[in-house]
Amino acid sequence: MAQLQPVLIDGQWRPSQNTGSFSPLNPSTRQPTGERYPVSSREEVETVIEAAARASEVLLGVAPEARARFLGLFADRIEARRAELVAMAHTESGLPVKPRLDDVELPRTTGQLRQAAAAARQASWTLPTIDTKAGIRSLLAPLEGGVVVFGPNNFPMAFNSVAGGDFAAAIAAGNPVIGTANSSHPGTTRLLAEEALAALAEAGLPAATVQLIYRTEHQVGQRLVSHPLVAATGYTGSRHAGLVLKEAADRAGKLIYLELSSINPVLILPGALRERGAEIAAEFTTSCLMGAGQFCTNPGVVLLLKGAETETFVAAIVEKFRSAAVGTLLGEGVERSLGQSVAALQQAGAEVLVGGAAGGGTGCSFQNTLLRVSGNRFLAAPEQLQQEAFGNASLLVVAEHAAQAEAICRTFEGNLTGALYTDRAGSDEALYQRLAPLLRRKVGRLLNDKMPTGVAVSPAMNHGGPYPATGHSGFTAVGMPASLRRFAMLQSFDNVRPDRLPPELRDQNPGGIWRCIDGVWTQGDVPAAS
Amino acid sequence: MAQLQPVLIDGQWRPSQNTGSFSPLNPSTRQPTGERYPVSSREEVETVIEAAARASEVLLGVAPEARARFLGLFADRIEARRAELVAMAHTESGLPVKPRLDDVELPRTTGQLRQAAAAARQASWTLPTIDTKAGIRSLLAPLEGGVVVFGPNNFPMAFNSVAGGDFAAAIAAGNPVIGTANSSHPGTTRLLAEEALAALAEAGLPAATVQLIYRTEHQVGQRLVSHPLVAATGYTGSRHAGLVLKEAADRAGKLIYLELSSINPVLILPGALRERGAEIAAEFTTSCLMGAGQFCTNPGVVLLLKGAETETFVAAIVEKFRSAAVGTLLGEGVERSLGQSVAALQQAGAEVLVGGAAGGGTGCSFQNTLLRVSGNRFLAAPEQLQQEAFGNASLLVVAEHAAQAEAICRTFEGNLTGALYTDRAGSDEALYQRLAPLLRRKVGRLLNDKMPTGVAVSPAMNHGGPYPATGHSGFTAVGMPASLRRFAMLQSFDNVRPDRLPPELRDQNPGGIWRCIDGVWTQGDVPAAS
Repeated sequence: MAQLQPVLIDGQWRPSQNTGSFSPLNPSTRQPTGERYPVSSREEVETVIEAAARASEVLLGVAPEARARFLGLFADRIEARRAELVAMAHTESGLPVKPRLDDVELPRTTGQLRQAAAAARQASWTLPTIDTKAGIRSLLAPLEGGVVVFGPNNFPMAFNSVAGGDFAAAIAAGNPVIGTANSSHPGTTRLLAEEALAALAEAGLPAATVQLIYRTEHQVGQRLVSHPLVAATGYTGSRHAGLVLKEAADRAGKLIYLELSSINPVLILPGALRERGAEIAAEFTTSCLMGAGQFCTNPGVVLLLKGAETETFVAAIVEKFRSAAVGTLLGEGVERSLGQSVAALQQAGAEVLVGGAAGGGTGCSFQNTLLRVSGNRFLAAPEQLQQEAFGNASLLVVAEHAAQAEAICRTFEGNLTGALYTDRAGSDEALYQRLAPLLRRKVGRLLNDKMPTGVAVSPAMNHGGPYPATGHSGFTAVGMPASLRRFAMLQSFDNVRPDRLPPELRDQNPGGIWRCIDGVWTQGDVPAAS
Repeated sequence: MAQLQPVLIDGQWRPSQNTGSFSPLNPSTRQPTGERYPVSSREEVETVIEAAARASEVLLGVAPEARARFLGLFADRIEARRAELVAMAHTESGLPVKPRLDDVELPRTTGQLRQAAAAARQASWTLPTIDTKAGIRSLLAPLEGGVVVFGPNNFPMAFNSVAGGDFAAAIAAGNPVIGTANSSHPGTTRLLAEEALAALAEAGLPAATVQLIYRTEHQVGQRLVSHPLVAATGYTGSRHAGLVLKEAADRAGKLIYLELSSINPVLILPGALRERGAEIAAEFTTSCLMGAGQFCTNPGVVLLLKGAETETFVAAIVEKFRSAAVGTLLGEGVERSLGQSVAALQQAGAEVLVGGAAGGGTGCSFQNTLLRVSGNRFLAAPEQLQQEAFGNASLLVVAEHAAQAEAICRTFEGNLTGALYTDRAGSDEALYQRLAPLLRRKVGRLLNDKMPTGVAVSPAMNHGGPYPATGHSGFTAVGMPASLRRFAMLQSFDNVRPDRLPPELRDQNPGGIWRCIDGVWTQGDVPAAS
């Protein structure tokens, strides 16, 4: 049996006080990768939490510039170890090296870290607010205690618990991170944590600013997110596991940000299909099958209106799904759950148009799958027909008429995204005006004439949405500086003496931080009292 | 028996489908006020929720200007009915007409409504963010469904569920409100709702934008906050009842903002006592006994360091507490629970210095009470000794030395406020630097040389703090425009056609809304592409 990998606690790679172990699988071969990782005990988790709490206090005295330096150095180190990281991520995830891992995901990861560094350095994310008349000043500040990050299976680097979006946001906001590796890519996580540790030392940050464990029993995980010394949790993953953690955190009054599931409705209106149906068919197929459909923003349900153009479109995508190569799934769990979801959708009344069975690709895989259901049927079982089929599958819903399409939109649960395709001539406009307001409230990001799978790291991005897409519709998990604000508390300073104020709130503003002074946003100093 | 008051549902005052009734008491006389109010049934609550959900959809098509107009008209109407409102609030709460209700609370209430109107009109609270390169724009927008507001007992007008801070914030942000009256002042709430209804008609808003019920059984309350058509809840009140609602809302993935309890530690350092002990004794006594101490920000615990100046200070405040008039409490429940809390503090090792028994004032009342405990004792039972004694009582904790004061600060739960008094000469500065960072993280608002009871309605105010003071340390319940952001969702528009964008996100910005365009805050238009 392979040697057990150590855990990273308080700056040391230590043998784990484990209660068990697990061996990740290569999904392309269904063979073990040859490594073995510990399941951490409750005692070990306590040690990690306490070290994070100490680091949280030390970080109060560390300038934002040092956090920024760490994030930049970490990005540099990831690039320096690029080949090894990409190879490990490929082994563990089955995701293609080119273009996905090497050209897209790794650059996205380092890009996010550098954007987070810029946000930390610039400090405008803290929304400093100054009321000169009342003598009160406020800003967003780091939390007390460590932030726990659970990364998802589908982005071994860009959402990794020790290098991804939640990690970068939590660190940039001034918090230490307790990373819990996703069990499908512990090796990638380990390599990233090695580089993080080295970068911490270079930047002069407390060693416990980044710690890593690999897995816990459920009860220990619940203890982790609800521990008095833990400040908050960022979780991306399955709805079931997420809700178990949410309940534990909620009960203890702890912050928890969740990204749970999303079927990302795409509404394609008749005019658009008549105008450019073939083009949209190609776009949809690419979006739905890219990465074997394993994106949080995968278009999982397509709402169409009954008519000849819809039948032409359906025939086109069925053909495309049939002929497209079948990708490798992230693991046996994904393959199994995709099969279960497709069966459940059929059970609820959907008909398989193409695919529907496991296999068809290299290693863990499932045929490219399209299902179809009438609007009437959908409305009879909207909950069952909205369950996420994570992977290369999508459900087409064909509504009888516009009023039924409206009714269907009203039944949608909260989602990360919703898209509307309309024609350029304007024949869909009236229908757009009926449907868009309904869809708008169900989704974090509304798109026009565009598939939802690209998630730009933009200040205006919302990778979030109403429950159950996430746990709080006011926040985004992607995009700087907004994503930092999840891991911060509002602090008001009332009559606090000038020399005791944090630098961001003093009269002088040498760094040109954007601040709202008496209702005016400015990069300037507080004006001298008149 | 008095006639049962009707409830306000969807624009109509209707006889309640009630499951019971209650009769409020005048706390100054311990006699019934003569009115009788319904306990609403589950069916009635469903009707209210559905009407609010319809209004929520209609409000999408209503310009922010109309919401602002409503808030302004409502404020005008409150002023026009001032004498009747103040008299009713006095009868129900026992709070003095002058200065409290007439000169302070009513003007605060109308002031908040007008500030909320200004925030709605100006629209900068939505934090519009524009990324011209990525073609993505975002803002904060109303939620889907009604916002439930539970007002507390201690501010019959300024935190009233149909006129107070949460109400104003939720409406200004574009949401309908379902008000649940506090049982101690249903009559005041009824009068306010009458004016709200008239103002809605004048402003042309949907009649169900403001609805009012008075009380529900616990299970119906839990259903209310977790209902699929309800968007969020704002609750201010007792910790126990709040946590029951929190659990129901959390389980359903619904937003809930809570203000639960706070003991507002005040740290008075030795130099300050030597320099101006008498002055601080007067300030503390006023702050603690004002309104019979029934403020969320009442200084409930005072941390002092062992020494002669502390003994002088303690003797002074004991004398002041003894000689000060005893105020009327809000009701028999407050009187009873204050007695229980004082007993529990004694049980945990605190000694009563003055007061400690019910009575001493007109009607419901409790002697002005000071308790004292050593730092050693406090550290032996920090949880028990931090329970809130809501009313005119405070606990003095005398630490042996600075290190013990630090240890005590570390045990503090989350609070709304924390204050530090130091001398002007600088002899306390080193101790301040040790204690302030510890206290800072436990509280929403940190004060210097000032008691916490004044809560200015300032853009930089934080009336919030870490759990259990509130349920989310990132938000404030007081202060425009920040308090609006609790009742909003983040909406991103990706590639959305220009004429379909909400006005706040279009290229032209005729209203001069503050927007962050490509990282720059400006009131201008989106610059023409270069």
